[in-house]
Amino acid sequence: MSFTAQLPTRVTIREVGLRDGLQSVATIVPTAAKLEWLRDAYDAGQRDIEVSSFVPPRLMPQLADAEEVLAFAQTLPGLRASVLVPNLKGAQRALDAHAHSMLVPLSASHAHSLANLRKAPDDVIAEIGRIRAERDSRASRTELEVGISTAFGCTIQGRVDPQEVVRVVKAVLDAGADRIGLADTVGYADPRQVTELFEAVLPVAGERLHCGHFHDTRGLALANVYAALQLGITCFDASIAGIGGCPHAPGASGNVATEDLAYMFASMNIETGQDFDKLIALRGKVAEWLKGEALHGNVWRAGLPKSMLQEALA
Amino acid sequence: MSFTAQLPTRVTIREVGLRDGLQSVATIVPTAAKLEWLRDAYDAGQRDIEVSSFVPPRLMPQLADAEEVLAFAQTLPGLRASVLVPNLKGAQRALDAHAHSMLVPLSASHAHSLANLRKAPDDVIAEIGRIRAERDSRASRTELEVGISTAFGCTIQGRVDPQEVVRVVKAVLDAGADRIGLADTVGYADPRQVTELFEAVLPVAGERLHCGHFHDTRGLALANVYAALQLGITCFDASIAGIGGCPHAPGASGNVATEDLAYMFASMNIETGQDFDKLIALRGKVAEWLKGEALHGNVWRAGLPKSMLQEALA
Repeated sequence: MSFTAQLPTRVTIREVGLRDGLQSVATIVPTAAKLEWLRDAYDAGQRDIEVSSFVPPRLMPQLADAEEVLAFAQTLPGLRASVLVPNLKGAQRALDAHAHSMLVPLSASHAHSLANLRKAPDDVIAEIGRIRAERDSRASRTELEVGISTAFGCTIQGRVDPQEVVRVVKAVLDAGADRIGLADTVGYADPRQVTELFEAVLPVAGERLHCGHFHDTRGLALANVYAALQLGITCFDASIAGIGGCPHAPGASGNVATEDLAYMFASMNIETGQDFDKLIALRGKVAEWLKGEALHGNVWRAGLPKSMLQEALA
Repeated sequence: MSFTAQLPTRVTIREVGLRDGLQSVATIVPTAAKLEWLRDAYDAGQRDIEVSSFVPPRLMPQLADAEEVLAFAQTLPGLRASVLVPNLKGAQRALDAHAHSMLVPLSASHAHSLANLRKAPDDVIAEIGRIRAERDSRASRTELEVGISTAFGCTIQGRVDPQEVVRVVKAVLDAGADRIGLADTVGYADPRQVTELFEAVLPVAGERLHCGHFHDTRGLALANVYAALQLGITCFDASIAGIGGCPHAPGASGNVATEDLAYMFASMNIETGQDFDKLIALRGKVAEWLKGEALHGNVWRAGLPKSMLQEALA
């Protein structure tokens, strides 16, 4: 059997630049620019976008306009707009706003969980139960997805035990999450580790294992995406221009760049619905809005291969 | 069956910085620095190095000291020193010098072959036959390897037909090559294409399909290495700091960086025999010798993950 025989024919790239990207840069992008960004992203074919975060505005002034940005996203037909919610209060805002999806982060690393959320993983799991109860009490259709961050290691704690990740995934699903994702928050994963952890989680989560989130800190994000793709994962987070660096690795790149991922899938004849040229144009605007911030990615510089342009014309 | 079940436990990273790297930069590195580079590379555990090219010195003054560099490399016990030879004359110099291996480039792209070597692929195949005859007449033990360049596409011609690659491989082996490699000279390959082309060539070449050579022009080199690794390929070309850009894509990165590849394999528990810290130290020297030239790679900036450092101490 060929190693490519079972690759999916279509995948979703979920854009996280407006949340994961913007929360980690100092620049505050004006709301009007965010709406232009959303419109251009939609026009480029993006249909799954994490648009903001329902954290207290004083903690994250970059995302203080979350309700307004979400409301605009909801006017774009067919767009799944998700928002990050760190706790029940955030979830209530997401439910009030009828977001398509709310994303709750949970660190598999105990040390990172305490440092980042000031809660142990089991306390976050309890909060997920409360969020699920709140949603059910409203008979809301907002989806509840939990992103297991630092699933492949942590800059504070170092190694994260895969068995602890499996335990947390089970508990999160038992607490009522609809879907989960595995995140290499700090760029520690390699393709073997990705394969082995996804293979360990799939028997527990099945199709509820939804999304892979890979940072490109050490240049391995695309290799890691390929490893997950081979296991049938069909949703990947990415941010335009790779924004969203890791605060613990200054100068290192952050999320895998949307345009690089869109290029790789297009080259592999896997549909994403995203238009490369329009992504590059949007990247140009983002570069203006984030002047002085570090941008990443590879394909924008080299351009598309001649062979691909020939196929597009054929 | 797990996708990682059959990964090799040991691979060879063949360093090509001293040839593929230096031939594409304007700076002429003094011979003494090249010998220091070789000594440090050897000390970092490198045992397979393409040390220079036997092209006419007037065409490539950067590599005019090929005999001297090769002679020094041959004093390092256990080091396999290979040299590029473009034709019979170059091969005669390699045979005179008793190189361990001579590497003949052959473009699968007809257009690239004419532009680069001023010969059609079939004329290069005929020359390979003459090189093999010359070696046999001397009863030499110098190995004859042919690198099939532009095997995944070409900046001049665009698409390269995989069936033409298979035809060329067969002809090259019939002409007497001991081993062949497949090269993505311009960074066009993706993991699906790598898998499919290697799967097409393996039935023809078997274990004589020796090495994968991937450029990182669009950030896909490590993903492509992983795809080839899954098929049992255990030799990969790389250059320290990723030197060796593609002349047709200015500013774009060239070869996959040795230190990135060494890191990926170490993270995957695959032995390379190379010492990461010593590679990074050598990278620093190369940066001095090539001041002003574009360097590449990711891991040197971010450093090793804490989880890996913990394992090293355990």
